[in-house]
Parts: sequence; C-alpha cells; structure tokens
Amino acid sequence: MKIILDAMGSDNAPEAQIAGSVQAVKEFNDIEIVLVGQSEIINAELDKYEYPKHAISVMHAPDVITNNDEPAKAVRTKKESSMVVGATMLKNDEGDAFVSMGNTGALLASALLIVGRIKGVLRPALAPVIPTSSGVAMLIDAGANTDCKSANLVQFAIMGSVYMKNVLGYKSPSVGLVNIGAEEKKGNELTRETHQLLKQQTNVNFCGNVEGSDIIAGKADVVVCDGFAGNLVLKVIEGMGGYINQTFKNIFFKNIKTKLAAVLVKDGLKNFKKTMDYREYGGSPFLGIKKPVIKAHGSSDAKAVYSTVKQVRKIILTDVIGTIQTELEKMDLESAKTKPDFEK
Amino acid sequence: MKIILDAMGSDNAPEAQIAGSVQAVKEFNDIEIVLVGQSEIINAELDKYEYPKHAISVMHAPDVITNNDEPAKAVRTKKESSMVVGATMLKNDEGDAFVSMGNTGALLASALLIVGRIKGVLRPALAPVIPTSSGVAMLIDAGANTDCKSANLVQFAIMGSVYMKNVLGYKSPSVGLVNIGAEEKKGNELTRETHQLLKQQTNVNFCGNVEGSDIIAGKADVVVCDGFAGNLVLKVIEGMGGYINQTFKNIFFKNIKTKLAAVLVKDGLKNFKKTMDYREYGGSPFLGIKKPVIKAHGSSDAKAVYSTVKQVRKIILTDVIGTIQTELEKMDLESAKTKPDFEK
Repeated sequence: MKIILDAMGSDNAPEAQIAGSVQAVKEFNDIEIVLVGQSEIINAELDKYEYPKHAISVMHAPDVITNNDEPAKAVRTKKESSMVVGATMLKNDEGDAFVSMGNTGALLASALLIVGRIKGVLRPALAPVIPTSSGVAMLIDAGANTDCKSANLVQFAIMGSVYMKNVLGYKSPSVGLVNIGAEEKKGNELTRETHQLLKQQTNVNFCGNVEGSDIIAGKADVVVCDGFAGNLVLKVIEGMGGYINQTFKNIFFKNIKTKLAAVLVKDGLKNFKKTMDYREYGGSPFLGIKKPVIKAHGSSDAKAVYSTVKQVRKIILTDVIGTIQTELEKMDLESAKTKPDFEK
Repeated sequence: MKIILDAMGSDNAPEAQIAGSVQAVKEFNDIEIVLVGQSEIINAELDKYEYPKHAISVMHAPDVITNNDEPAKAVRTKKESSMVVGATMLKNDEGDAFVSMGNTGALLASALLIVGRIKGVLRPALAPVIPTSSGVAMLIDAGANTDCKSANLVQFAIMGSVYMKNVLGYKSPSVGLVNIGAEEKKGNELTRETHQLLKQQTNVNFCGNVEGSDIIAGKADVVVCDGFAGNLVLKVIEGMGGYINQTFKNIFFKNIKTKLAAVLVKDGLKNFKKTMDYREYGGSPFLGIKKPVIKAHGSSDAKAVYSTVKQVRKIILTDVIGTIQTELEKMDLESAKTKPDFEK
C-alpha cells in the first residue's frame, strides 16, 4: 500500500514527517510512503537516515499552505502546495491514503473539493479519538460541519461505528448522542429528532443521550454531535488537559520537598501524561471521503507521525471506506423530517 | 433584607440548609432567612443550634419536588411544595430573593411561571460562575434555553456583565462569544450573527470569540452561548474535574511511597481541590427574572449554603435586577435579522 504524506505545513515539518516515516517503513514492510513537499529540503533530511530506499519516495511541491491561509482560497489558488498536490495524487489513484499535519480547514477543503465524498454521504466529518476515564472514544463530528441536520448525525453514527469496529477492534461499539439530559425529550430540535432516528438504525448500537460528563466517563464508544458541539468538547478537554499539566508543574516544582514527591509518584504521573498525550491516538480521520484522508496534530513529532502512519495502515487493511459504503446503504431515515438528497 | 430558602429537595436537605443559614445569620446582621419546607422536621433541626431567633423563621410547605419530577408538571401540580410556596412568596413580595438546591428544571419553571421575567427580557438564563486557570468566569446560558436567537445571546452578554460588575466587582468585564474559531466569520449562523451584534453594543466589553480552550484559560470574564453549548461546557468541565480527582487518588493512594508523596504536596493538592470546589463559588443566578432566583448545587453542604446566602446578599445589596433593567434599555439590535418582540 502507498501512503501519501504531506511533509510540510506543520510545526516540526519536515523533520518529524521524515523521522516518523523512516520508523514506520522499518517496522512495516507492506507500506510505501510518498513524501510531498519541497524536495531539496526533504531529500537533504532523508539523507541523514538509514532505511529501505524503495519504501520512501519524494514528490516535489514547491508551495506550502500555512495556518494563516484562508482554507478554501488556499486550496483554489495554491495549486502547487504540498497539500493540493498530495490530495490530487490520492484522487488520481497514485496512493491509498493521504495524511497531513497542516491547516485543518484547508485539508477538509482539499478532501471535499479534490477527492470528493463517498456516494450517499451528505457531510463528511472529522473524527478524532479522544481519551476517556475508561479508555477512548471517537468524537464525530469535531468541527467539519457547524450546522447539521439529523440525517447528518445518523451518518456520523454509522461511520464512527465502522471505524471503531474495523480499526480499534470493538465488537459492537456503543453510540451516544451528545445532549444536555438523559431523557429522549431533552435537548434542542436537532437532538430530539436525531434521538428518534438513531433508535431505529439496525446497524448502530445506540445507548441514548450522553452529557458532557458522560463523554469523559467513557459512557459511549462513539460520541455523535454536530461540529460546533464536537469542537467545543474537544477544545474544553484540551484546555483542561493543559490546565492540569500546569497545575501538576505548580504542585511539584515548588521546592525540594515537592520535587521529592514527584519522584515518588513518577510512574503514576507518567501514566497519566501518556493518557492525555494526543500522540498516542494517531490522527483524526475525515470520514465520508472517497479515500482515507487523515489530519494529524499540527505539532506532531516523529512519534506522532509514526502512530498516524500505523493507524492509516490499519484503515487501509480493514477497508474502512468500503465498509462505510456498505453500512450507509442500510441506513433507515423513514421518519426523518428532513431527508437527505442523496444526489447532492 | 429577607431571603427565602427552599429547605427541601436536595441531597443534604434540610440539615445543610439549616446549618448554612445559622452560619449566615450569625455573620450578617442585615439578613433574615425564611426556611420553606416541612416545618416539623425543620424546627426539630433548628432546635439544635444557637442563633439570633428573629433572623430565621419557618414557612410550612408539606410537599417536596424531587429530581425525579417532570419540572413543568411538578410546578403545576405540586402547589404545596416548598419550591412553589417559596417562589410564590417571592412573587408576593414576602422576600427579596429565593434560593433552592432542588430540581433545576422545576426551579427555572417556577421562576418563569410564578415570578416572571423582567420586562424586555426574552429568555432568562442560568449563569454559574466557573473556575478558570486564571480566576473565574460567568457562563451564560448554562442550560435554560436550548435553542437561542442572536438577540437572546446579546441579552445574556448584558446581564452577565452586570452581574460580574455588581457582585464580583469587575470594572469592565470582558465578554467572549463561545465559538469554534477566533475569526468573526467562523462558527454557525447563530454565532456569526451574534458576533456582529455584540460588536455594536456600547455597554458590553466584547473581546471576540472564545474557543473551548480559551474558556478554561480565562480569556473572557463573561462567556456567552446558548444553553446547549453552555451545559455541554459545564458538564465536560465537571467530568474532567471528577476524572482528575480520581486520577489523583489512583496516583497517591497506591502504596506507602505514593502516600508519602501526597503528604509532601499536601498544600498544593489542597489549593487545587479548592479551585475545583463548586462550594467556593455559590449558586447559579437565574438572570432575567424580576427578582433574584438562585439555584445552588443539589449536593450543597452547610458551607455551600452559607456561600450562596452570602452571594445572594450581595446580589440584593448591589441591585443586580435594577441594573439589568437599566442596561437592557441601552441594547442596540438595529442590525439583528431576528428582532425580539418586547411584549412577548
């Protein structure tokens, strides 16, 4: 399989992308990686490593989309950027998946405009895996669609379930609908209608509404919401994570006594830090696109790049896209007030 | 001033309400408290304390609204419940504020249906003060209104600013609009329209959009959103708080070495726990109601009841309601697509 990797546009580019790719191709002999970006810089960096030469190639792209670029405009105008070149290669079957650590909005736009949606998918969704107090959960949508209809949310539930089954090996992932109360009548118009639709899906293990605290407690394996709510949840969790880290520092780096304490609970602290470390969870797949497109964290280091490649390999091997297609056909939207136009 | 206190319907009722009230009237000689509930039980409990007898009286109400009651129905049918009796007393000027630790939905319904809105207020909002990494912030609305219009959010901004000025002494509280991006074009239809309206308010110190992580970082003193988003944020923070507490326990209660560590960082842990302790922040005012109605935590202990009474005293002394009325009249909704009908 061939993974197209955007080598530019992130905090540690291209060093992290290259080191992570080298580690990945050394471990898995069934993958090839195409690094897309400024070839001179990439080749100079690659020369520092020993690795099976056939497994990594470079595709030159002189331009870079940065985080300051306006997404849709950048995709339209920066045709020679690593992101647009990479997405176009994926579209043209020159690879099996595309990974980028760059501008999230621009990657979503590239995926939508260049690669395109799976037939029948109304709205692709960004779906990170987040830590919970009892394991992990998929949060879908985490920011690709701010205004959603109930049919969109049902598709998110189906796509998220497929991912958790295929990639993370869950037998029957439970699906929770983000809401502000447990009862089915609670919430806003969108959640009340979605609740009824999710109840009637045969291929979704719907466990009811989940509140903010339930998400953290890991009450559902797939947490379904519109992109506004999802992005909010994601960012509050990130913010709390940062706050806790700072608190730990304040508590333990105060004086010699507290530093001794840090040594005594070293293992526990390390475990906790690992739990909160985004690098452990790979990137966020953009589900609903014709081929796998994955957004990894903008501050990804080599380890995060490696984790993402490993995750993408699994996405390809377990045919997440094909399974999503099959499962979406079983979707039951009979009672939806707002029905999707499948041709749009 | 006279504060009406619902003595029933919470986890530690009526003991916590009584112990907290006794502490409050001992400290402040300008307050009287009316405890509403089952008088026999309340009087028996009151007999255990020494306190200025004129400062606490009891109003008998035989029935109780529990957390299992359906809010609107309970308010309609349980006329002799402590909550309905208390709200009715407030309406009839038999007190200056009403505090309850009971069923949140029922309290909101009592406030709306019995006490009524301030003229011109479209939607009253539940507005807790939450801890941030740099202090506190008011989150408005935290769950009273699931579907909001931009004019509602502008009113929340104004009411929240008044509260932070009057009760917490902020000179010019900054107001942030909850959104999923910093740029003004980001977000959903509601936030884009609200952003434009907030920019033109002369009595709101608008600091732009705030994302989930910005809320935690304390970027705004008043955090404005619809009740769906607000409740979600509140519950994720609560969930993370619980998760962190559990993590601390796992880290420190493992063995003799880690228990020693806990002793060494005792002060730091205590400070952190205090920061995350809802009891430090009093109750959540229900802003937009004609007279002060405050919801305190269902698991309030004596200390939390005392904090809430102290906070309510300040709400009355600084005339939060009167100031809200004055400030709402300055509201500028010229460019709102959806304008409020002030007579509704």
